[in-house]
Amino acid sequence: MTTGNINVSVENIFPLIKKFLYSDHEIFLRELISNATDATLKLKHLTNIGEASVEYGNPLVEVKIDKEGKKLHIIDQGIGMTAEEVKKYINEVAFSGAEEFLDKYKDKVEDAGIIGHFGLGFYSAFMVANKVEIITKSYKDEPAAHWTCDGSPEYTLETSDKTDRGTEIILHIADDETEFLEESRIRELLIKYNKFMPIPIKFGTREETLPLPEDAPEDAEAETLTVDNIINNPNPAWTKQPADLNEEDYRKFYRELYPMQFEEPLFNIHLNVDYPFNLTGILYFPKLTNDLNMQRDKIQLYQNQVFVTDNVEGIVPEFLTMLRGVIDSPDIPLNVSRSYLQADGAVKKISSYITRKVADKLNSLFKNDRKDFEAKWNDIKIVIEYGMLSEEKFFEKAEKFTLYPTVDDAYLTFEELQEKIKDTQTDKDEKLVILYASNKDEQHAYIDAAKAKGYEVLLLDSPIVSHLIQKLETSKENISFARVDADHIDNLIKKDEEQISKLSDEETAKLKTILEETIPQDKFTVQLEAMSSDASPFMITQPEFMRRMKEMQQTGGGMNMFGNMPEMYNLVVNTNSELVNDIFNTKTRKKQERLIKQSLDLARLSQGLLKGEELTKFIKRSYEMIK
Amino acid sequence: MTTGNINVSVENIFPLIKKFLYSDHEIFLRELISNATDATLKLKHLTNIGEASVEYGNPLVEVKIDKEGKKLHIIDQGIGMTAEEVKKYINEVAFSGAEEFLDKYKDKVEDAGIIGHFGLGFYSAFMVANKVEIITKSYKDEPAAHWTCDGSPEYTLETSDKTDRGTEIILHIADDETEFLEESRIRELLIKYNKFMPIPIKFGTREETLPLPEDAPEDAEAETLTVDNIINNPNPAWTKQPADLNEEDYRKFYRELYPMQFEEPLFNIHLNVDYPFNLTGILYFPKLTNDLNMQRDKIQLYQNQVFVTDNVEGIVPEFLTMLRGVIDSPDIPLNVSRSYLQADGAVKKISSYITRKVADKLNSLFKNDRKDFEAKWNDIKIVIEYGMLSEEKFFEKAEKFTLYPTVDDAYLTFEELQEKIKDTQTDKDEKLVILYASNKDEQHAYIDAAKAKGYEVLLLDSPIVSHLIQKLETSKENISFARVDADHIDNLIKKDEEQISKLSDEETAKLKTILEETIPQDKFTVQLEAMSSDASPFMITQPEFMRRMKEMQQTGGGMNMFGNMPEMYNLVVNTNSELVNDIFNTKTRKKQERLIKQSLDLARLSQGLLKGEELTKFIKRSYEMIK
Repeated sequence: MTTGNINVSVENIFPLIKKFLYSDHEIFLRELISNATDATLKLKHLTNIGEASVEYGNPLVEVKIDKEGKKLHIIDQGIGMTAEEVKKYINEVAFSGAEEFLDKYKDKVEDAGIIGHFGLGFYSAFMVANKVEIITKSYKDEPAAHWTCDGSPEYTLETSDKTDRGTEIILHIADDETEFLEESRIRELLIKYNKFMPIPIKFGTREETLPLPEDAPEDAEAETLTVDNIINNPNPAWTKQPADLNEEDYRKFYRELYPMQFEEPLFNIHLNVDYPFNLTGILYFPKLTNDLNMQRDKIQLYQNQVFVTDNVEGIVPEFLTMLRGVIDSPDIPLNVSRSYLQADGAVKKISSYITRKVADKLNSLFKNDRKDFEAKWNDIKIVIEYGMLSEEKFFEKAEKFTLYPTVDDAYLTFEELQEKIKDTQTDKDEKLVILYASNKDEQHAYIDAAKAKGYEVLLLDSPIVSHLIQKLETSKENISFARVDADHIDNLIKKDEEQISKLSDEETAKLKTILEETIPQDKFTVQLEAMSSDASPFMITQPEFMRRMKEMQQTGGGMNMFGNMPEMYNLVVNTNSELVNDIFNTKTRKKQERLIKQSLDLARLSQGLLKGEELTKFIKRSYEMIK
Repeated sequence: MTTGNINVSVENIFPLIKKFLYSDHEIFLRELISNATDATLKLKHLTNIGEASVEYGNPLVEVKIDKEGKKLHIIDQGIGMTAEEVKKYINEVAFSGAEEFLDKYKDKVEDAGIIGHFGLGFYSAFMVANKVEIITKSYKDEPAAHWTCDGSPEYTLETSDKTDRGTEIILHIADDETEFLEESRIRELLIKYNKFMPIPIKFGTREETLPLPEDAPEDAEAETLTVDNIINNPNPAWTKQPADLNEEDYRKFYRELYPMQFEEPLFNIHLNVDYPFNLTGILYFPKLTNDLNMQRDKIQLYQNQVFVTDNVEGIVPEFLTMLRGVIDSPDIPLNVSRSYLQADGAVKKISSYITRKVADKLNSLFKNDRKDFEAKWNDIKIVIEYGMLSEEKFFEKAEKFTLYPTVDDAYLTFEELQEKIKDTQTDKDEKLVILYASNKDEQHAYIDAAKAKGYEVLLLDSPIVSHLIQKLETSKENISFARVDADHIDNLIKKDEEQISKLSDEETAKLKTILEETIPQDKFTVQLEAMSSDASPFMITQPEFMRRMKEMQQTGGGMNMFGNMPEMYNLVVNTNSELVNDIFNTKTRKKQERLIKQSLDLARLSQGLLKGEELTKFIKRSYEMIK
């Protein structure tokens, strides 16, 4: 038995590890299982290249709780350590075993899947244990070693009678960390961090009932078998080649990732790149709502199949954080801030690779099965529109597959839309006017009026659509967007034809005076128009510019000054309608006023502006009228 | 000149510091300025207790950029170090100078404001510099020392000719960190981390124009003066006693904290506790919207006037993260995970102290100026309601000051409300029925009907009010809430009186058949009621239970099963109304059908259910009718 001091001022370094190294104590288990997996993969590699002559077999990593003894065991069947190696790898803090191994076998290990990114991992054991033992037997023909340390700088090292290859770590759990002796807590951690690690992890056993043979007598008892309870799937879908997976495999993996999620994903994107960085993963498009504040943080980040975090901010472009799935890359720096991530060259490349892959996938979905793509459009458009607004490169690529749905459920690309409406919707100044509605119900009367003219009306209802429209207007030439209720239809798309007014200019002026005596002018600007006689007599409109600025301001961005401006409405009065002529010719002022008020109420009703007491009164009056 | 090795395996520890210690490189400046402040406060303490016989004066910390030389200087006029102290404090990694100082002067330093929580702070310099120099002269009568280290384990230490007391740190900024040579970047960091540190921090100078004397000749040129540009306020409001501050001081400090915030806070809560933990701070109630997803993360956490983070999750109870302001406590563990924070005893105490202080403040505001409290209620209720739902202790305390506004803008406590309505709104089963509306406009007709009976109607319009109502119903006895449109008013509060029906049972049954031939039964359940003859002939209601469950589900919680159920509506037909009798007695089926349809449309209009094409048609029909 030898006794010695660890080769660092350990009294100082241990508190440092406890305090600063990991923010979360639970991480120790991930670290120790990573080490165990690492040791197993190392052995696999050595047997593969013929440097170790032992049988690799089907090794496991086992986690065992000894609640009475207050101990947690992590046992592997990997490469093991000789006493010399324990001294070298364990007694010198901050010396990364994996790094040296990588150095030695630099050219051969590319596919060996060495983890070893967590150099100081072993010492994290002292975050939860007041004493740690290592019992280890190397694959080399040397006696096993038994190392013990109670967290003080002193350790003991002696020989052990362990005969089977591999390493057992025994944590004597500290009194204030006994949560790590609870089966449910350990299971939770194993599932959180190790669900997809490459070596099977055994945690306890379970009984399995064997099926009875078909010819078994009726009273035969089914035989039960005790089998290892394996907590992980060592070969998750993202580690496989896309060619080896079908749609059902992807759906199955989605359910593995989100067991509580009942809705199927719409489609997936398999990421797989070796150069200039290493990244694999599968992203899923879930059904998205129109709420920008929806839950993000559903994409899980792994490094060599070890779970790291579900916060991929800075790695995945912001608009794609609404997606789900897995990204696995050893090239993403850990434990660094967002601003650092954003400045990191490798991370920038990863981010733009992901953006490109998503755009390519969308484009191929659009090209290969347009019907299906159209059917999914409303569930995915929020991501695409947000991406177009936030990533210029994506905006350019999205041109090809972005769809503009009409109120009649046609889905057109911008090019198709232009082609379809250029003859009818180009105004006298050669500008192409694109009409849209934000709500089929609320703007029904206005949509009707536009359709009566043979115009197409888009249905654009995402919360950020005003920003997108603004961007489209500035990036394309000679187009403008107008919501159907921004003015009456003949003003929205001005043609050279002029409507003849039934009223003379003098009469029109007189009508205006009459109307303005009754219409509250702080709320409505009266606008007299000679329209077709069957158009609505009264109609309330809201100018495009101000409304759009206010909307933009509400969803972030746009100019602040518009936010607090009052709503502005125009009251368009059709001087050619029969009712308006009736009003003009009504002799008694009282009756005239009543007609104007009722017409105004109906116009307000159509724009959703008749509410509360006024609506109640209107309804009462109407019940009276039908009696 | 002596040359030696730092007393640790530095090749290992330096990469460790670079990689793990701080996630963010920018932190180095906070650390070095903390050290400089620390050294100054130490000197102040020693002069105060008579252990240092030098003049304390008005020391500054100065930050200087030498862009050409690629150097950043941090200079203090504090305690300084002798060569021996440099060896001891700098050459032994993880040896915290402040800790030893605290040990030595344990009983005397309580108010000395020593920072020194960041033991390893100095080494963070190597995150951004490839060479670091220390030139330092102690307050003791010893020669100055000059220490240089290029990040390798080797350092040099020689004497320096520096004559003024204090320490100058010179960072030779590395080529990939040149952002830290930009004035704007350094200014940004100083403002972020050091805005309220206790020693003035000088960063550059500025010209100040002196005012001209009143009798100056007209062509006199104003004199300019070069003054130190002090970046911080060393005595922020939260470090003062509440008794020394008036309302304007608090408002001024709010503007200091949030210079871009134009709206004034509603009121503030000064936190100030010594035992069993140390915590100071000022919390502000801003005007809150009814959006639960509003911006949080506005409370800043400090430790001894050093900014730490603006994420106080886990420290402040969740419902209070909507507030703004500052918390300063040395007792909050840094760099730990949320789950760790939540389990930490001190943090739990802090969190419940803050909850209690907020409740106490609200109570005193309510008691001292109820009118003002009522005026602010709608801007603060979301926090209070959220708190009542999430913290049982707060729920109990909030009983006293929670207000229930009526549609007529009276604000009642629950007790007052009970007292006011108990005679009128207790039903025949001795249950007190509390009526409410969620929107005065949308439910206007229903509110009217309730008020016509002499009932009070509350206006409860927060997004989480259905959860609160549910909680109130289970925590109080013999009360129930009903929204005014949940049924017709005589059914909402059932009394023993019975309305006499104008129709016989047989006629009623016949009327029902007639109605059901026209009313779509998949949308409306026809419910015939003998009400007063002047009540509305047709009325659409939505049963309370189902609607509330659906609402609860939408805002999280509640039973999932209700989310996807279709909306359920009843059509209440008043058999005593004249119109309904007209319908019953109409001889031609066609006219009867037209009357039923128009009445149904009006009832739908009143409940906001007549939309789109149906509304457009209704309006067209109505224009025809008034011609």
